Amino acid sequence: MVTWFGRQKRIEIPRLKPRGEALPTTRVDLGELTPELLPYFGQAAYFELGLFQTLAQVVSTAPALASKENLAPAAGVALTRYEGLVAEIRRHGGDATDAMAAFQPALDEFSHATRGSDWAELLLGSYLTAGLLEDFFLSLSDGLPADARHRVAQIFGGGSIEAVLVAELTACLAADPTLASRLAMWGRRLVGDTLLIARSALHVSGDLAAHEARVELRIEPVFTELIAAHTRRMDGLGLTA
Amino acid sequence: MVTWFGRQKRIEIPRLKPRGEALPTTRVDLGELTPELLPYFGQAAYFELGLFQTLAQVVSTAPALASKENLAPAAGVALTRYEGLVAEIRRHGGDATDAMAAFQPALDEFSHATRGSDWAELLLGSYLTAGLLEDFFLSLSDGLPADARHRVAQIFGGGSIEAVLVAELTACLAADPTLASRLAMWGRRLVGDTLLIARSALHVSGDLAAHEARVELRIEPVFTELIAAHTRRMDGLGLTA
Repeated sequence: MVTWFGRQKRIEIPRLKPRGEALPTTRVDLGELTPELLPYFGQAAYFELGLFQTLAQVVSTAPALASKENLAPAAGVALTRYEGLVAEIRRHGGDATDAMAAFQPALDEFSHATRGSDWAELLLGSYLTAGLLEDFFLSLSDGLPADARHRVAQIFGGGSIEAVLVAELTACLAADPTLASRLAMWGRRLVGDTLLIARSALHVSGDLAAHEARVELRIEPVFTELIAAHTRRMDGLGLTA
Repeated sequence: MVTWFGRQKRIEIPRLKPRGEALPTTRVDLGELTPELLPYFGQAAYFELGLFQTLAQVVSTAPALASKENLAPAAGVALTRYEGLVAEIRRHGGDATDAMAAFQPALDEFSHATRGSDWAELLLGSYLTAGLLEDFFLSLSDGLPADARHRVAQIFGGGSIEAVLVAELTACLAADPTLASRLAMWGRRLVGDTLLIARSALHVSGDLAAHEARVELRIEPVFTELIAAHTRRMDGLGLTA
């Protein structure tokens, strides 16, 4: 079994098994995809900047003061991750604005589309999109040089955004059990847009263009696993994925 | 001349001079007012939490990506100040939610009322209200026990919110000189509401009730100086206060 919990530095995923062939012992991972540094950090940084803004809105619109108090540090974690990623852009000789600019239209639209119609949907959108995309950026970092990969692990390993979102979502669902079916539907609607953002990162790296068919074979199980992790998040909330 | 720049730990203010009397050599300061610890920290914390949310909105609605990048750290400074003030509430045996709750209605209304109608007004509102109220909370901290006063100085001394707001406001005014008269009017409208928030902190401390007339005499020059510092901020932007 592959697990994405615990944020391992390297996530190993079984190669797709051609029909009738014996189970291979070799494994592939996203590390072979070697993302280009500045687009990688630019997209991840702008995603975290958007997540920070969304979490600040979660704080602003929280119905109870205790929830604001619980959630404010999560917004701080996203901001700290953003600042760490911007520092990587500069460390690699890039300009942060330039590196992020290409991703602004798609990520702004994504952020808008995953915002939802009320506070519970905003919470769920933050939780599911952050969970999926941070897992994805972390696994994509396997293809970076060792020192950058190490710092990315530190950036995404510092603090926790998910725990408080799960706690607040669980409280929302306990207070209003009728919410479950609407949130389940919202979770299903989010996942497609979120996977498209992940896939766009691979396109930017140039790998798809260079080795399209071979790389598609490698990406497929990664996306299967991203969806499986998404399903586990939904299950954890008692929602049907 | 009294100056409020540089965030001195103790701000000395000349006593009001009764007509015809020789200039007194004694001085009064807010340190004699001795705020109650938990209401002091509760109000300051909830103000910083609101400022964080406002600055996150400044980032969200910034017209240029470079401005978002410049302003995001300022939101982080407000969040760090909030977290430092919440830590003080807990250090003194209080519950952060309880300590902040009494100030939520007035500060939420204040935050809403000082938000303005566009991005430039939102920026100016953040700058002027943060400048005035952080100066005020810092000077009120003179009445706290020495260790708490020292930590308050560290909390408000860490990072800078004002520099980037001045830079962005200056850029707005340079790009559109017709903005100056509208922003000048907005700055004048803000100051009354902001001083009322400051005055409410003194009421909460109980000092006004105990020594109303005597304390009013002491507060008056403090408010005169808060207004003078506000005028210097407006002047610094080339706006008529």
